[in-house]
Amino acid sequence: MQQETVAVEQGLLYERVAAHIEELIERGTLRPGDRIPSVRRLARQQSVSIATVLQAYLELENRGIIEARPQSGHYVRARRAPLPPEPRAARACTTTSRPSIESMVAKLYGAGRDPSIVPLGAGFLDPDLLPTERINRSASLIARSAGGAGVSYDLPPGLLALRRQIARRSIEWGCALSADDIVTTVGAAEALHLCLRAATRPGDTVAVESPAYYGLLRLLASLNMRVIEIPSHPRTGMDLAALAEAMGRHRIRAVMAIPNFNNPLGSLMPDEAKEELVEMLGRREIPLIEDDIYGDLHFGDERPRPAKAFDKRGLVMLCSSFSKTLAPGYRVGWAAPGIFREEVEQLKFAQSVATATLPQMAVADFLDNGGYDHHLRALRRKLAAQVERVSEAVAAYFPPGTRISRPAGGFLLWVELPPGTSAHLLFERALARGISIAPGPLFSAKQRFSGYIRLSCGHPWSELFDHAIRTLGKLCAECAG
Amino acid sequence: MQQETVAVEQGLLYERVAAHIEELIERGTLRPGDRIPSVRRLARQQSVSIATVLQAYLELENRGIIEARPQSGHYVRARRAPLPPEPRAARACTTTSRPSIESMVAKLYGAGRDPSIVPLGAGFLDPDLLPTERINRSASLIARSAGGAGVSYDLPPGLLALRRQIARRSIEWGCALSADDIVTTVGAAEALHLCLRAATRPGDTVAVESPAYYGLLRLLASLNMRVIEIPSHPRTGMDLAALAEAMGRHRIRAVMAIPNFNNPLGSLMPDEAKEELVEMLGRREIPLIEDDIYGDLHFGDERPRPAKAFDKRGLVMLCSSFSKTLAPGYRVGWAAPGIFREEVEQLKFAQSVATATLPQMAVADFLDNGGYDHHLRALRRKLAAQVERVSEAVAAYFPPGTRISRPAGGFLLWVELPPGTSAHLLFERALARGISIAPGPLFSAKQRFSGYIRLSCGHPWSELFDHAIRTLGKLCAECAG
Repeated sequence: MQQETVAVEQGLLYERVAAHIEELIERGTLRPGDRIPSVRRLARQQSVSIATVLQAYLELENRGIIEARPQSGHYVRARRAPLPPEPRAARACTTTSRPSIESMVAKLYGAGRDPSIVPLGAGFLDPDLLPTERINRSASLIARSAGGAGVSYDLPPGLLALRRQIARRSIEWGCALSADDIVTTVGAAEALHLCLRAATRPGDTVAVESPAYYGLLRLLASLNMRVIEIPSHPRTGMDLAALAEAMGRHRIRAVMAIPNFNNPLGSLMPDEAKEELVEMLGRREIPLIEDDIYGDLHFGDERPRPAKAFDKRGLVMLCSSFSKTLAPGYRVGWAAPGIFREEVEQLKFAQSVATATLPQMAVADFLDNGGYDHHLRALRRKLAAQVERVSEAVAAYFPPGTRISRPAGGFLLWVELPPGTSAHLLFERALARGISIAPGPLFSAKQRFSGYIRLSCGHPWSELFDHAIRTLGKLCAECAG
Repeated sequence: MQQETVAVEQGLLYERVAAHIEELIERGTLRPGDRIPSVRRLARQQSVSIATVLQAYLELENRGIIEARPQSGHYVRARRAPLPPEPRAARACTTTSRPSIESMVAKLYGAGRDPSIVPLGAGFLDPDLLPTERINRSASLIARSAGGAGVSYDLPPGLLALRRQIARRSIEWGCALSADDIVTTVGAAEALHLCLRAATRPGDTVAVESPAYYGLLRLLASLNMRVIEIPSHPRTGMDLAALAEAMGRHRIRAVMAIPNFNNPLGSLMPDEAKEELVEMLGRREIPLIEDDIYGDLHFGDERPRPAKAFDKRGLVMLCSSFSKTLAPGYRVGWAAPGIFREEVEQLKFAQSVATATLPQMAVADFLDNGGYDHHLRALRRKLAAQVERVSEAVAAYFPPGTRISRPAGGFLLWVELPPGTSAHLLFERALARGISIAPGPLFSAKQRFSGYIRLSCGHPWSELFDHAIRTLGKLCAECAG
């Protein structure tokens, strides 16, 4: 633990130096193309070590704020091109449908497993962005000391130490959950699955955002549900007027949504809209299954509240996990299923008996002692920079008529291709060139969004991505109808 | 690894000494009540250390073969009483039903979590019987060295190294699976769940053994399935004539069974019956979902084959896990779903995305290097001894008219109480006295078996259990109708 503290303090030091340079740029003291102070000079000026300045400059480089020119020094980076406009929202659609997107998803994940393919497709984070070594060390120490606890079943509702940590953190998001409100799960996927099973019956109609995360669509398909797609705005999320209209027309049994940094839109539903959504559904006793897996990845100062924060009746079933912030392979997620808690717990039992014990213990320990907030701050900065880099490259290389989203958090970019461009064709052509992207039709039960793609910015920027996005830009022209 | 080898050799040495004494008893050279050679004398005689003999005697003591008398030495144990007859099989029942056993299961597992309660109820193994320290050490080393692999998703079909180990072992059971046949899962529970979802639709009728493992009944209930119970013989398992008759009367969409060391019966279906079952179902294209979680825990010399060994058409969906042999809390299981493999893989994705990576790596490593076979040999001996001890205590303390099963493997005992005794009342009264048992009605969708209980022998024998079973015997009289 001693070592941890030192690491955190060092972190703060280089961050302070980086913030200093950033401020000079924001104030206009340093302008695009200006050379910034040499490492040696700044170290003397700020009374810090050379290593600290190097780390600060690397950080600023990673974030796309400065660039190193060989043999010359560091310079303030110029924005390559102004960003094109945001994508347009989907139009309302009046009929329900059954999702069927298996073959595309299989290709997408097949590509995700192939290390030779440039990973702009699947929504995975590079392990280098995660506290991989630290959480593995934590798991290692726990495995050594857990004794029988490590090998024994940790029956639902799941590890108390972990549920306590989640409850403690929920105060910051305005939820004030108690440990008893929470059931731990195998990632957010199992949480969503259990909540859906608890709240609905096969054949029921569920409203989702449009575009919708394909994982939700697959889940709904696997449970034989019908889906009604509600248009979502790339900046503010689900169109509540359209939802109200759909509720008049269809017997909607549940709504599934990602209000905070939607996948694929990156949209953030404003608090007032969240409150209205919860009230609208509450009046009709319709549960909201809320996926908040990106909630901690805000680019702005404040951690947005989930819709659950406005839930007075226990109808909001909040689901999340540590797969986008700590360790996807640990498979540790959770649900706060409100009035459906008992049913979710029973279904969890029938479905997988328990969540693996050691990974839960490691995550609980990390939340308690690992500097999770410090890690999140760094991760958010890196992701914001990566999203910016990818956005700029798309702006520079894609044909006129392209539109791109302005995500306020997360690491996903939604791109509307110039009119007539086939996302599916682009997906196939890009894959043939060793580049993976997620084609728009994946995000619709009706295979809409044929002219959209999702780009994942889950990997540190490098020339590889610059080259790949340049290639995608060229391929766009070939895929125009 | 060096240390491992030494441990294995030491193990073999004390085992040899124990086997020597056991042989003397079997041959009749030493008879019940005889004093066996002193530790010192035997050490000299066999040219081994005192510690080795002590270990051998402890082993024989644990297995109920000898007993230590304070200040006097070790004696060949007398069987306390001849065992009562075996329980009777259930009668056939002609109608289907929907299981509903939640409240009893909740009580059972509630008791399972309370360390002050004598654990004869839930089918859990004492962590001291498992290679807890070794597998945790393995997990610890892997966590330290896994790097990004440890935190990254291990997407379906799951960890190749683990699937290879399972495939390698399957040759011994006459299955010769390939790694490609296997999908790893969150314990056998998820495997069964996925197979059931792949092979059936909600509302379908599924045939199960009677009595049936309550976990299967809960699973079926959670998926809104109908259940037809097929009588099972305590020694040979499912009555195939009754199954044939039921197939004539109902549209059975799948059969779920535990042919090897059934839970709760301990029955072992003979190979010919397995072959006939597979053929019967194959002719009608009905999938068999086979739970082989106890298959490695045979008391006899040979590892019984699963029904899957007789499967020529890919209709047998074999499910198992390492929860009864290595580490339940690791939640590592698998399915070999035959022709349903692709569907199971897709459902796995939708349901929980992936199985936790590190636990899979640790299990694969243990199977490769940990002396799994050596561990299994020791575990089987211990479980056989524990089952024998519990059987003898029931024979000694329960009222006349009691019948008990003769499990050929596993660690569960099925007890038929004297006519008119209420298992449910006994369950409640025993719980009030701090003893947990599993009441018979748990094992039926129709709440049959009101005069049966299941006793778990998953813990090393001690006075605590002797006292508890004596108490149960007394309570039986109070619960007579």
